[in-house]
Amino acid sequence: MDKSLKTPLYLQLYTFLRDDIVAGVIDGGERLPSKRAFAEHLGVSKITVETAYSMLISEGYVYSLSKKGYYAEKNLILHPAVIKASAAAEAESAQTFLMDLSSNTVPPGQFPFMVWAKIMRNICLDYREELLLPVPYNGALCLREAICGYLSGQRGISASPSQIVIGSGSEYLYGIIVRLLGEDKLYAVENPSYGRIKSSYTQNRASCVSIQLDSEGVDIHSLEKVNPDVLHISPSHNFPTGIVTSLRRRRDILSALYADEGRYIIEDDYDSELRFSGKPIPTLYSSDASGRVIYMNTFSKTIAPSVRISYLVLPEKLAERYREIASESGCPVPSFEQYALAGFISDGYFERHLRRNKKYYKALRDKLIAIYNADEISGRSSITESDAGLHFFINLKTEKSDAYIKNALFDRRINCSFYSDYTYEPAESCPHKLLVNYSGLSPESFSVFLTELDKII
Amino acid sequence: MDKSLKTPLYLQLYTFLRDDIVAGVIDGGERLPSKRAFAEHLGVSKITVETAYSMLISEGYVYSLSKKGYYAEKNLILHPAVIKASAAAEAESAQTFLMDLSSNTVPPGQFPFMVWAKIMRNICLDYREELLLPVPYNGALCLREAICGYLSGQRGISASPSQIVIGSGSEYLYGIIVRLLGEDKLYAVENPSYGRIKSSYTQNRASCVSIQLDSEGVDIHSLEKVNPDVLHISPSHNFPTGIVTSLRRRRDILSALYADEGRYIIEDDYDSELRFSGKPIPTLYSSDASGRVIYMNTFSKTIAPSVRISYLVLPEKLAERYREIASESGCPVPSFEQYALAGFISDGYFERHLRRNKKYYKALRDKLIAIYNADEISGRSSITESDAGLHFFINLKTEKSDAYIKNALFDRRINCSFYSDYTYEPAESCPHKLLVNYSGLSPESFSVFLTELDKII
Repeated sequence: MDKSLKTPLYLQLYTFLRDDIVAGVIDGGERLPSKRAFAEHLGVSKITVETAYSMLISEGYVYSLSKKGYYAEKNLILHPAVIKASAAAEAESAQTFLMDLSSNTVPPGQFPFMVWAKIMRNICLDYREELLLPVPYNGALCLREAICGYLSGQRGISASPSQIVIGSGSEYLYGIIVRLLGEDKLYAVENPSYGRIKSSYTQNRASCVSIQLDSEGVDIHSLEKVNPDVLHISPSHNFPTGIVTSLRRRRDILSALYADEGRYIIEDDYDSELRFSGKPIPTLYSSDASGRVIYMNTFSKTIAPSVRISYLVLPEKLAERYREIASESGCPVPSFEQYALAGFISDGYFERHLRRNKKYYKALRDKLIAIYNADEISGRSSITESDAGLHFFINLKTEKSDAYIKNALFDRRINCSFYSDYTYEPAESCPHKLLVNYSGLSPESFSVFLTELDKII
Repeated sequence: MDKSLKTPLYLQLYTFLRDDIVAGVIDGGERLPSKRAFAEHLGVSKITVETAYSMLISEGYVYSLSKKGYYAEKNLILHPAVIKASAAAEAESAQTFLMDLSSNTVPPGQFPFMVWAKIMRNICLDYREELLLPVPYNGALCLREAICGYLSGQRGISASPSQIVIGSGSEYLYGIIVRLLGEDKLYAVENPSYGRIKSSYTQNRASCVSIQLDSEGVDIHSLEKVNPDVLHISPSHNFPTGIVTSLRRRRDILSALYADEGRYIIEDDYDSELRFSGKPIPTLYSSDASGRVIYMNTFSKTIAPSVRISYLVLPEKLAERYREIASESGCPVPSFEQYALAGFISDGYFERHLRRNKKYYKALRDKLIAIYNADEISGRSSITESDAGLHFFINLKTEKSDAYIKNALFDRRINCSFYSDYTYEPAESCPHKLLVNYSGLSPESFSVFLTELDKII
């Protein structure tokens, strides 16, 4: 059992046991350890063993005799069809990487579980009736209130709760945006950027192009040439380059917006909270005079992706329009989760959580960069964007292609991505910039990574 | 403050205070009670007062002086624009009915809040790492496991966790179904049925027709005439008629399914758990041999609509196909909620909860029907579908139209719906069947309702 693996422990245990039973290492009819004893022996929670056992039972690898215990199935015949479509497929498809630098994970130590549990308990005491009523289409008022408070304090945004729309993840919000602004419009995203943004717009049947960035933000001439109806940008922090749109460029972008009544801007502020250097950047939303900037943000970076809560701040006209088309439908986020997050924010835990995480990640990043500088690979590469939130680039001086390096690392069970994965330019023409999402990394595994990387390039 | 109203208390308080301030009942500059004192005085929680106050402040009706307290705004000028797009609009649009018979609500006493809080605490202790990882596209394995266990025990469905897809409410599941089976297919729903089902299919760009029910289920001749690719039915319990599809009719429906490889059935089992009489009905899913029946169910009836968790059981081939198209995307339901529900089910709380609720609702229903029988209105009407779960019909012998009766009740702040609201036949040709969703009703309010109704018809 390897807790450093990305695969959940129950899946690891399930796989080990299944393979041993199939391979005959565990004989048919042999008794398996009791759940409690096994859990103690492995140093895992009882639920982990329970889940693995119940998977094996539902798969027919293990049978249980009441009051006796669990036994490996005798003269086992495999049913490929069943197994293919069963949890086994998930176990096999589950990525068992030693390290995954391609995305950020939250170290369990960095989330205040007990505070969350306490808040959940309090709302169960305080909100009984409200918790059971259907949640309004735009989310629970208390959460929209809390977000308004947070935004006015931290992002200089003054909005009424009626302008907030709570959604379950960004993809849900893209759907709302296209529903509001129309699928007949031309959408534009930054190049480079998350591929998911563009694909979400196209999945919603809107046509979407990408506009090149220069050092100050989206290139104004390309913007004027493409002339999109809806411009989706992250002015406070582009991913992955970390480029901050300059004040001058913001002015140009806004005047392009004002030039045409039909134009809108989506300000994707996805992880402005986690910048380490530079002063906080005022939002386009708060600088806009036309009421045509939509602000969006998420809690999946600041809390965890699994929290599945993101939100829009709609200009009042659009908030009205959205109420007209959506007020009959429900909000996809459970009330319990919304009330808990509302409490987490308004009781000040969220800001404490952010301060604590920023401190933790800054220290971690400094440690990793120190390790990098001490490693001989630093002679054949350089680090950039080291203040761009939870990732940085290692710029490799190498003849090898990004694809080659990626595969070589993959063979060593290390998953990573390159700058070239986030741009629409051909990979050959891109610099070899390896992206390091470090939030889940330990200094030890990072050294291992550098050694492996050094062998490859 | 009236706790029996559907409007949350903070909205009631907000509205009272706002109207009094606008009307000058509270003078400009007059000091409002402290939150704590006010809460004690009104016998509501402090959060209720806080929410109302913060709404009034963000609206500009009230201002606060630090260390001094809250004051009504002086020489108040209303800004209609602002107020329209603000929380006031929500307060106004919020239905302040004395009774709402048009939908079921869960009485707070009927949900084990402390059990839920305890489970939430335990998962925060046991699952730390898993809770922060992104949830697989088809939902947390532990919840899919728990649902499989429940389905095999209660509904005779044997499915592997890989066949389950967790979603946030039925509308999300309709989207998946159309994505899987294609928007070019012809979908058919029962007539009568929830309007939302048909509209969801059409919103997903599929064409959808409705097929008449007779006493045994969907009429086979109409079915053969319409010949839909996808048939969406609730064989164990049609809404609102409560008609149970007969075994013979199930055979006919399945042979129609087998007649054409391209056909599928969606078995919507939405509240089979809450039937009071008759023996449990085997599902079409478990009777099907072709692997072309999709089973769907939700926890919004059995727990609460605000829980926002529903699920599909996909035949293995479709489960595979869905994995191919969706495995990259995320599950919209927060991990905390999924793990909590998994614990709620697998620790046996869910079945206890169902038993307890069935007992409670059966007793309530019997009490209400006794009240009805004792009321003189029973001379001019009759009750049917009294075993159809959480609602029954009052069949009115009257010349008045459904619309007239509905408006007359509406004027008395009673919201209700009729059979004619769920069918596509012209209202004139429908019997006057008034739908009583009684789960949230008290015997007292039901007597009030009967008296009012008696005056109208």
